[in-house]
Amino acid sequence: MRPNKERTLLEELQQTINSERILTSPEDCVSYGFDASFGACTPDVVVQACSTDEVVTVMKLANKYLVPVYPRGQGTSLSGGPIPVKRGLVLDCSQWNNKLTINSDDMIAIVSPGVLTSKIDEEAEQYGYMYPPDPSSAHVSTIGGNLAENAGGPRGLKYGVTKDYVLGLEIVTPEGEVVRTGGKTVKNVTGYDLTKLIVGSEGTLAVITEATLKLVPRPKATKTLLALFDEIVDSGKAISALLKSGIIPAKMELMDQASIQAVEAYEPIGLPLDVDALLLIELDGHPVAIEEEILEVERWCQTMHAREVKIAETEEMAAEFWRARKMVSPAIVRVKPTKISEDATVPRSKIPDMFAALKEIKDLYQVDLVVFGHAGDGNLHPNIIADVRDREEMERVEQAVAAIFKAAISLGGTLSGEHGIGTMKAPFMEMEVGEMGLDLMKRVKQAWDPNNILNPGKIFPDKGQKLVLTNG
Amino acid sequence: MRPNKERTLLEELQQTINSERILTSPEDCVSYGFDASFGACTPDVVVQACSTDEVVTVMKLANKYLVPVYPRGQGTSLSGGPIPVKRGLVLDCSQWNNKLTINSDDMIAIVSPGVLTSKIDEEAEQYGYMYPPDPSSAHVSTIGGNLAENAGGPRGLKYGVTKDYVLGLEIVTPEGEVVRTGGKTVKNVTGYDLTKLIVGSEGTLAVITEATLKLVPRPKATKTLLALFDEIVDSGKAISALLKSGIIPAKMELMDQASIQAVEAYEPIGLPLDVDALLLIELDGHPVAIEEEILEVERWCQTMHAREVKIAETEEMAAEFWRARKMVSPAIVRVKPTKISEDATVPRSKIPDMFAALKEIKDLYQVDLVVFGHAGDGNLHPNIIADVRDREEMERVEQAVAAIFKAAISLGGTLSGEHGIGTMKAPFMEMEVGEMGLDLMKRVKQAWDPNNILNPGKIFPDKGQKLVLTNG
Repeated sequence: MRPNKERTLLEELQQTINSERILTSPEDCVSYGFDASFGACTPDVVVQACSTDEVVTVMKLANKYLVPVYPRGQGTSLSGGPIPVKRGLVLDCSQWNNKLTINSDDMIAIVSPGVLTSKIDEEAEQYGYMYPPDPSSAHVSTIGGNLAENAGGPRGLKYGVTKDYVLGLEIVTPEGEVVRTGGKTVKNVTGYDLTKLIVGSEGTLAVITEATLKLVPRPKATKTLLALFDEIVDSGKAISALLKSGIIPAKMELMDQASIQAVEAYEPIGLPLDVDALLLIELDGHPVAIEEEILEVERWCQTMHAREVKIAETEEMAAEFWRARKMVSPAIVRVKPTKISEDATVPRSKIPDMFAALKEIKDLYQVDLVVFGHAGDGNLHPNIIADVRDREEMERVEQAVAAIFKAAISLGGTLSGEHGIGTMKAPFMEMEVGEMGLDLMKRVKQAWDPNNILNPGKIFPDKGQKLVLTNG
Repeated sequence: MRPNKERTLLEELQQTINSERILTSPEDCVSYGFDASFGACTPDVVVQACSTDEVVTVMKLANKYLVPVYPRGQGTSLSGGPIPVKRGLVLDCSQWNNKLTINSDDMIAIVSPGVLTSKIDEEAEQYGYMYPPDPSSAHVSTIGGNLAENAGGPRGLKYGVTKDYVLGLEIVTPEGEVVRTGGKTVKNVTGYDLTKLIVGSEGTLAVITEATLKLVPRPKATKTLLALFDEIVDSGKAISALLKSGIIPAKMELMDQASIQAVEAYEPIGLPLDVDALLLIELDGHPVAIEEEILEVERWCQTMHAREVKIAETEEMAAEFWRARKMVSPAIVRVKPTKISEDATVPRSKIPDMFAALKEIKDLYQVDLVVFGHAGDGNLHPNIIADVRDREEMERVEQAVAAIFKAAISLGGTLSGEHGIGTMKAPFMEMEVGEMGLDLMKRVKQAWDPNNILNPGKIFPDKGQKLVLTNG
């Protein structure tokens, strides 16, 4: 921003927003320059918004002075969503956590954007309800960020993703107008579905200032099972057989040998180091039904040559099983400091093919590739671990990541199941959605944000943009 | 259309589309001029499309000659969706039913737009799967129409609506470009969600030429219960108590006294004429769980003062209960020939308030108002029966309908839960979504369809447009 423009914008901001929540010092601004992915760019100013009026002020002034605005929650994005790549103003909504209201009769929650996602489920539990979306970051990420990115999680298999739980929104448009979309009812066909268009648009179409979320009855019981496989392909067959049998587990997570070995090296919990893969399966629902289903799951795993199947008889034992899965991420960064976390997703039937493709990519580019994730819905998390300071290695990693995207798309899958496009995957957009598909998206963006104020530089690639995995 | 323009357009159409599927005679065209709601307008030409290429041809020529195009399935719309209100070309997709493929491993169905909706579920059943959306018209309506209108149905309560089952689409844009949106995976966050924007856009944003639909495992068992109430408000309380207890029935349908009496007059099945309302509840899932839940439902109904609760012990008995519900529509048109079927939807907690509001409206405007529908999700179907030839009565009906819309919105509800806006509810759009909300929708329409070729005259009201319930 030019110094004059910045001064005038600041003066106008200070007329309506408390100066304590307008940050301009370099040491404050620098921490708003990155997220949990790659790249960094320090903004010129940060506004910590706590009301819809403040967002309106910010957006109107941003259009007046043509300054880009980057909405942000806690910055846990894995795709560069909140990075202020063209500098300008970061709109931090993470302090705006004053509203978390459960309407018990309508089974809905009404929340402000800065509420932590896990708090919604905790509050819902008081009423016997559940807010199902459970991204790994739920304890530190805000619902605003989850809505912008349409966050998923293990429960996606049975319960769907964030978008499936959003009944209505209050938004501020890129030009600073307040609009309510959707409502409080599950059925609503009044005009275009702006709610579902905005959720997952990565903060490029609107700033979400309030959301009405659908809750569901909390399942009466859950039960967990751990199955060890000598061949990862057999675990894929077990997944397929199970789902076809009519059982939909709440979660069905996979860890490959590399993730098991990393976890055991990090904090040994007694997993055998020589199995090729393990499946962690959680069933939920009516206790009588679960008792029967868990035995059926056990039988299917055995039919598909599981070496061993363990049913968690107590809650403590189930918690211990899940601790292994939770430790994968911290464990693998012990091996090497830089983790490139992908979420390319394939149709369920292509999971074994994707395993094969990932093995080829690992060998071809000689990268440390670890595979785990939400196997039941085809949403694998191939993670590459590397050292960002090793330029030669990172070039191989960039090639391997591009190959992963290509493999997923050629198998009828998608670039991203839950992390979003952001800056990182923008160069690959056209490969998946085609020139005309991208054009339709651009037209919506242009129609709503003619000055390209809101989160520019995301989703849509700049001309000739390439994947770059450095923090330079 | 001016005769010259029509002739040249026709000549160009005939170059690529079989003449047998281009209809121009008045007697052919007249039957494409109406749907199951009000109003009629004969098109100039009808094209029965059977391929994506043909749709591309139609859209490109329509843009060249600036002729409006009205996509259409079987015309069962209750809101005027397919009526060619500005004449032009009707694009009939109801003959295009050649593709209905189940991919068992991925639990998906791939369908062409003219496939009857009920056929999809029938085909899915062969594999032990279910396609849940079940609009009453499922046996006669096409999936293309269901997608355009985002059709609902009784199962919406537990399973959601059409949109919740659409993973991907092939579309032709208003300008004649072929685009694929979404894909085959449940999780997909690659760019804007064009799939969910197009589903429910009432054929104004794209012509849907293929859809990839999610299937779910067919429930192992179902059980039905019928509860009779002396006070309709108590039935509302029973609904609320049940859902809060953690049970989500597959269906929960209500019939008020007027609908019960109409059914008994039409084809007596022994329902007591003096009850104020009845609830029909279907539970599905694991047989052991259902056995327990049905008793819990019975207890809740009794707690809320049900006069009597009957559990269907056999499938035949369950079918008999559901026959009553299915007969409501044919039964009430016996009373008077004209049925105005509304679907204003309110938050669950406001169902009793909506009952009260409907009673007031009935008394104030002296109309024959019958209430039934999907009570569990607040999606009531207040139907007014009248005689369209009685102009004085129809004026009162128009006022009553407007009052129903106002009541629903003032209770935090929506104009339409599943029938769509079309021509009929367009005048009320701004009341619900506001001037700016409507503006955001218009901008999308304009960005994608600059010549306003695709289904003009729907959703967006013309200046000063009023509700008119005549066929004149």
